[in-house]
Amino acid sequence: MKNQFIVIEGLEGAGKTTAINTVVDILNHAGINDIVFSREPGGTPLAEKLRELIKQGIEGDKVTDKAELLMLYAARVQLVDTVIKPALAAGKWVLGDRHDMSSQAYQGGGRQIDRHLMQSLRDLVLGDFKPDLTLYLDLSPELGLQRARSRGELDRIEKESLAFFERTRERYLELAASDKSIITIDASQNIEQVQNDIRTALLKWLAK
Amino acid sequence: MKNQFIVIEGLEGAGKTTAINTVVDILNHAGINDIVFSREPGGTPLAEKLRELIKQGIEGDKVTDKAELLMLYAARVQLVDTVIKPALAAGKWVLGDRHDMSSQAYQGGGRQIDRHLMQSLRDLVLGDFKPDLTLYLDLSPELGLQRARSRGELDRIEKESLAFFERTRERYLELAASDKSIITIDASQNIEQVQNDIRTALLKWLAK
Repeated sequence: MKNQFIVIEGLEGAGKTTAINTVVDILNHAGINDIVFSREPGGTPLAEKLRELIKQGIEGDKVTDKAELLMLYAARVQLVDTVIKPALAAGKWVLGDRHDMSSQAYQGGGRQIDRHLMQSLRDLVLGDFKPDLTLYLDLSPELGLQRARSRGELDRIEKESLAFFERTRERYLELAASDKSIITIDASQNIEQVQNDIRTALLKWLAK
Repeated sequence: MKNQFIVIEGLEGAGKTTAINTVVDILNHAGINDIVFSREPGGTPLAEKLRELIKQGIEGDKVTDKAELLMLYAARVQLVDTVIKPALAAGKWVLGDRHDMSSQAYQGGGRQIDRHLMQSLRDLVLGDFKPDLTLYLDLSPELGLQRARSRGELDRIEKESLAFFERTRERYLELAASDKSIITIDASQNIEQVQNDIRTALLKWLAK
């Protein structure tokens, strides 16, 4: 199998970091060691600066939904064009902690930004570039936030209402149902079960 | 005449600051004193942070053209939605040092970003919002850069090639020719002549 772009998606507290480690283990066991990691928003010096602005906001200036969305796409296109595409072109695998599906779910679902705007912006900025495989870790916002809170202070987006995260999850599920390159993993299970499900799904996909 | 959104446009060294002062004088003489100033990119705490990233770039990470464009629109929509539109709604006049025409000229013309992308992004982000009047200060890049250089160190964009600024000017002229709300001022003249031309054009426009 040629090198691929794999993305881990899900709400806060869904267990993305553990999932990434699991995927790396499986890839390594399959003899795949040349893996480039990306996280979004972020992953380049410019994109990390934008991440800081997006996550922390700025004193005395409430970030508008559209400004947030455009900063996310600025960070994404910088990452895609300077890191992800060159890595794929060089034969490396790329493993992403979030990608465009997060914007579709959080900004499109959570913030309820117009679907036409979301779709058009995505098409304009990214064209037909998309991950080869997305593992979406699904769990209820209640459980996710409970886990996220136990890790410490929440950022600007993590402080959103439960209804926001319910809309975000709903959009995640809708997207997962409409795209065969997205595999949904039940992340409400205990960690061993989640890892097992990821292993099963990924090995099946790798064997294709 | 009800309150309006007036923008000053032009290449580096075209004399935008002097033009803004001239416009303020004329408006004040016409009894218009409630003027909100904006500059782009910038004009809000978030947009000023983005201005810094756009103007200075960031060590070890060449800003891609698309990332630059998206940061410009992030800054613009934040300014439009939190400053310009509320000011206009409150009956104030708004006087802008650059606005969307700069992106069309610099990124569309100078950087040669695809016209369809430029137009679609503008429409998506700003809809039909545009200035009531734009005064475009036209001069050759040679003269403009000569004046700009005499003011001190150049930023990331000011360091572009002469060909870049020639394409930018060309797009400025093309836009000015296609939009009746844009008045072109010959900024290669001496300062008194430029001020006179601005005065004549603005008084005529105000009298409409």
